[in-house]
Amino acid sequence: VLSIVTEPNAFSGAQLDRAADERKDPAWVAAQREHPAARAVMAGDAGVHVTDGAQPRLALVPLADAPAAHEPLLLGLDAAGPVFAVDVDRNGSVPRPLIGAHGAGEPDPRTGTRPLGLREAVAVLPQADGGLVAYCCALVNWHRRHGHCSVCGTPTGTAAGGLVRECPSCGAHHFPRTDPVVIMLVTGGSDRLLLGRQASWPAGRYSTLAGFVEPGETLEEAVIREVREEASVVVGTPAYVSSQPWPFPASLMLGFSAPWLSGDPVRQEDEIEDVRWFSRAEVAAAASWGDEASAPLLLPPRHAIARTLIETWLAA
Amino acid sequence: VLSIVTEPNAFSGAQLDRAADERKDPAWVAAQREHPAARAVMAGDAGVHVTDGAQPRLALVPLADAPAAHEPLLLGLDAAGPVFAVDVDRNGSVPRPLIGAHGAGEPDPRTGTRPLGLREAVAVLPQADGGLVAYCCALVNWHRRHGHCSVCGTPTGTAAGGLVRECPSCGAHHFPRTDPVVIMLVTGGSDRLLLGRQASWPAGRYSTLAGFVEPGETLEEAVIREVREEASVVVGTPAYVSSQPWPFPASLMLGFSAPWLSGDPVRQEDEIEDVRWFSRAEVAAAASWGDEASAPLLLPPRHAIARTLIETWLAA
Repeated sequence: VLSIVTEPNAFSGAQLDRAADERKDPAWVAAQREHPAARAVMAGDAGVHVTDGAQPRLALVPLADAPAAHEPLLLGLDAAGPVFAVDVDRNGSVPRPLIGAHGAGEPDPRTGTRPLGLREAVAVLPQADGGLVAYCCALVNWHRRHGHCSVCGTPTGTAAGGLVRECPSCGAHHFPRTDPVVIMLVTGGSDRLLLGRQASWPAGRYSTLAGFVEPGETLEEAVIREVREEASVVVGTPAYVSSQPWPFPASLMLGFSAPWLSGDPVRQEDEIEDVRWFSRAEVAAAASWGDEASAPLLLPPRHAIARTLIETWLAA
Repeated sequence: VLSIVTEPNAFSGAQLDRAADERKDPAWVAAQREHPAARAVMAGDAGVHVTDGAQPRLALVPLADAPAAHEPLLLGLDAAGPVFAVDVDRNGSVPRPLIGAHGAGEPDPRTGTRPLGLREAVAVLPQADGGLVAYCCALVNWHRRHGHCSVCGTPTGTAAGGLVRECPSCGAHHFPRTDPVVIMLVTGGSDRLLLGRQASWPAGRYSTLAGFVEPGETLEEAVIREVREEASVVVGTPAYVSSQPWPFPASLMLGFSAPWLSGDPVRQEDEIEDVRWFSRAEVAAAASWGDEASAPLLLPPRHAIARTLIETWLAA
C-alpha cells in the first residue's frame, strides 16, 4: 500500500471561498460583479492567461478590463475580493471546442497577458494558481458544452453565479459535471510496474492505466475492470492514494495502487498500443532523466498524478 | 485511519461483463437483443422489479416479455447471456421524474413481478442483485433526463447499447453522468463523532456530513470544505475508506474519515437542521438497536455507506 503523498497534486490547492451559500442570492452575485476589486481569470482556445514575464503568475485582471462577450462566472472570494472566470473566446451562444491548446500563445494587446496551455501553465505556476486554473477551465468547458437543457432542449440561463444552469421551459436545474476517472499503478511487488502506452503519445512514453468510472460500480470495481479490459491482467484489492482535478474537460483523477495477481499483460483495447512490465531499474533510470525524446522510457510529466504514483512507488 | 471494510457496500457487486468493446458495434448490439437468452431488469416510477415471494430476487424476465415502449439499454453479459435495463414507465420522449419511490408496489400482471423502492430492494436482495439495481437505475435515470443534446438542444439517439447518446445535428457524444460525492466521518479520536441531521429526516436520525465535489478540487479538499461549510469545523487530513454507487439519481459516494482539529460545531447551511457531537456510548447504543421510531438517536440505514463508516469506527 502506497502512503498518501505529502506534496499536493498539480491542478489542486486553489485558495478561494467558493461562497456556496451567498451565491444563491442573485442580488449578491450582481453586487460582486460591481465590486471595485472584482477580478477575472481568463481562459480561451489558446489556454489560460498568465502574466508576461520571466516568472509567470496566473493573470488576474480587473473584471471590467477582461474581454468577455458573455456572462462572467463567479469562482469565489479571495482575500482581496471576488474572482470570476471569463471565456475570452466565446461570443454569444455559439459552442466552442474545449480548451486543449499546448504551448504559449501571443500576448493579448487588450490585457498584456499571454495564453498558455494548461499543462504548461501548471508546470510553471505556483500551486494555488494551478488550482484556480483547474477550477476556471472545468467551469468554462462545462458552460461551453451545456448551453441547452438536456431534458427538453431549451436554451438555459446561468444561475448561482455560474455553478447552475436553469431551464426557463421545464425548470430543470443543471450542475457542472465532474467525471470520475480511476488511474492505477499495477505493482509486481517492489520489483516491477505494469505500464501502457497509447499510439498517439510521444515515442517511448508509458504511463499508468486509467479509465472512466461506469454507472453502478465502486472505484475499486472500476480499477479491477479497467485493468482486465486494457491489459487482460487480474489485480487484487486496490488501495487509494490521492486525487487530482484534470480539466480536460472536467475529469477527477482518483489514484490507486493495485497488486498484480495473475495473467500476462496482453493489450485488449484499440486505444492501447502496448502494455508491459518495466523493472524497477528501468523506471528509476527514467525518473532520473529529463524529458529527452531519445530516452528508451519516457515517464508521464511531473504535473500528472500518474507520475506521482510512480515516484511514490520508487520512494517506498 | 479507518481500515478498508471487508464486507462490500450495498449497491455494488454486479457480476456482469459490461462488454465495453463489443458494444461499439451496432450489429453486435442488435444481435444481443435477438438473443434467445436476452433478459431484462425492469425499473420504473415505483422502483425496481423483484420476484413476488418470501425471499425476493431481482426479476430478470425474458426481454421480449418486458413492457418497454422505448429502446432497451444493454447492461452487459452474465453467464446465461445478455442483460438489458428496461424503463417500464417511459413511453416515447416525455421525460419522467427520477426513480425515487419508497416501499412495495402492486404486482404487475404483465410480468408477475413487483416494484420495490431501491433502498428497500438492496436491503433484501443478494449483494450482486443490488449492484445490478444501482447500474440499471443510474442508466435509466440518465436517459430520462438526457434526451436532448446539451450543446445544441437537438433530440439525441442511443448508441453503444445505451452507454452513449449521440447528437444527429452537431455530432456530440454524451456519456452517463456519475456525480462524485464526499461523505465523511468526523472523528474526535475514539471518543466521539460529529453527526448532523436534515429537517426532512425522521425524528432522531443523524448521519455523517456529505456534499458534492465541486469543479477543480480534490476529494480531500471537498471533505475539508464541506465540513467547514456545514458545521463550521476544521478537520485534518482526510483518509479514504471505501466507495458506494448511490443511484439517486447517479451519485458515487466516496467515504472518508477526517480527524477534528478545531472549532465547535455550528450549523451553517439551510438544509442542515442540527450538527453535534455524539459520545461513543450514545453511538454504540444506537447501533445495537433496530430502527425504532422512539430511539433517541437513529443511525442511517444499514445499506448506506454512512452506517458502514460509523460501524467501522465502532469496531476499531
